Amino acid sequence: MGANEVDGSGGSSAMRTAETLLRILPMALCVAALVVMLKNSQSNEYGSLSYSDLGAFRYLVHASGICAGYSLLSAIAAALPRPSNLSMAWAFFLLDQLLAYMILAAGAICTEVVYLAYKGDVSITWSETCSSFGGFCRKATASVAITFIVTLCYAGLSLISSYRLFSKFEAPVACTNKGIEITAI
Amino acid sequence: MGANEVDGSGGSSAMRTAETLLRILPMALCVAALVVMLKNSQSNEYGSLSYSDLGAFRYLVHASGICAGYSLLSAIAAALPRPSNLSMAWAFFLLDQLLAYMILAAGAICTEVVYLAYKGDVSITWSETCSSFGGFCRKATASVAITFIVTLCYAGLSLISSYRLFSKFEAPVACTNKGIEITAI
Repeated sequence: MGANEVDGSGGSSAMRTAETLLRILPMALCVAALVVMLKNSQSNEYGSLSYSDLGAFRYLVHASGICAGYSLLSAIAAALPRPSNLSMAWAFFLLDQLLAYMILAAGAICTEVVYLAYKGDVSITWSETCSSFGGFCRKATASVAITFIVTLCYAGLSLISSYRLFSKFEAPVACTNKGIEITAI
Repeated sequence: MGANEVDGSGGSSAMRTAETLLRILPMALCVAALVVMLKNSQSNEYGSLSYSDLGAFRYLVHASGICAGYSLLSAIAAALPRPSNLSMAWAFFLLDQLLAYMILAAGAICTEVVYLAYKGDVSITWSETCSSFGGFCRKATASVAITFIVTLCYAGLSLISSYRLFSKFEAPVACTNKGIEITAI
């Protein structure tokens, strides 16, 4: 009960715990996507192919790294039981939104590359590669799939942080108190 | 003055006009991106290339069409001077967010394809195409650039719609009115 009231308009401690967990989950997933992609290289009789040969996969690695770092920092910030203020709510809101867009773009770009690697495109003379580099394509697909789960997490997080920000904007705390006081008098 | 009070917590008429304009702008831009991409085909001595040969560009056309339709409908809905309710605020919020993600994904995917068409990728044996089909690539780039402006519009719109939704959640309208009435009495 006391813990619920410590942080004022920052939400209850149960909500804070839920938010912290929801920020730790994408951190773990980002690290997973990062590791799977970093270890993704294959050499066979057709030649060798590594994630770093493709700009899209390099971007995914960078985006996952940034996302993992931000998720960790924001989980720590969300876990601290101090009263949240407006500028911090704005920072969470804008950064969560930005990360959601960044990680979605990474997932979308890599999906297109994986799609082209599987199917090829005859009209533009891009040959399919996955019959020769099956293992490479499967690992890339796994990494991209994890990235989309991270995107879902961040879509949820930006919903939470926008609720926190804007429900604070016209927060009726002062006026409610006055109303109640006056009624009581 | 009277117009400001018609729609209660739905915001002032100036804000409503601004939101309507911000919804008409992406509609016009989506139609522009759509038309530029639809007319994008080139035939020369190397062969012919049309937007429909590439899955990413087909997706851009569909996404732009959906976005233009939604922008028109939502502009009409935002312009009507009726009192906004919670379920409509939720619908705006979720759809604006969804459209922002959809149009960003379309832009990101097509950016990757345009990048590959300009640069190619030696390690995966995808040749660059833009030296043969320069006009095609320039038109595709223009269409993608417009799509990113639309993405910015929708990022702004989802900010506005989340403000509208969540500032309503704990809206102090009833309590403020009571407070003022009691004070007046």
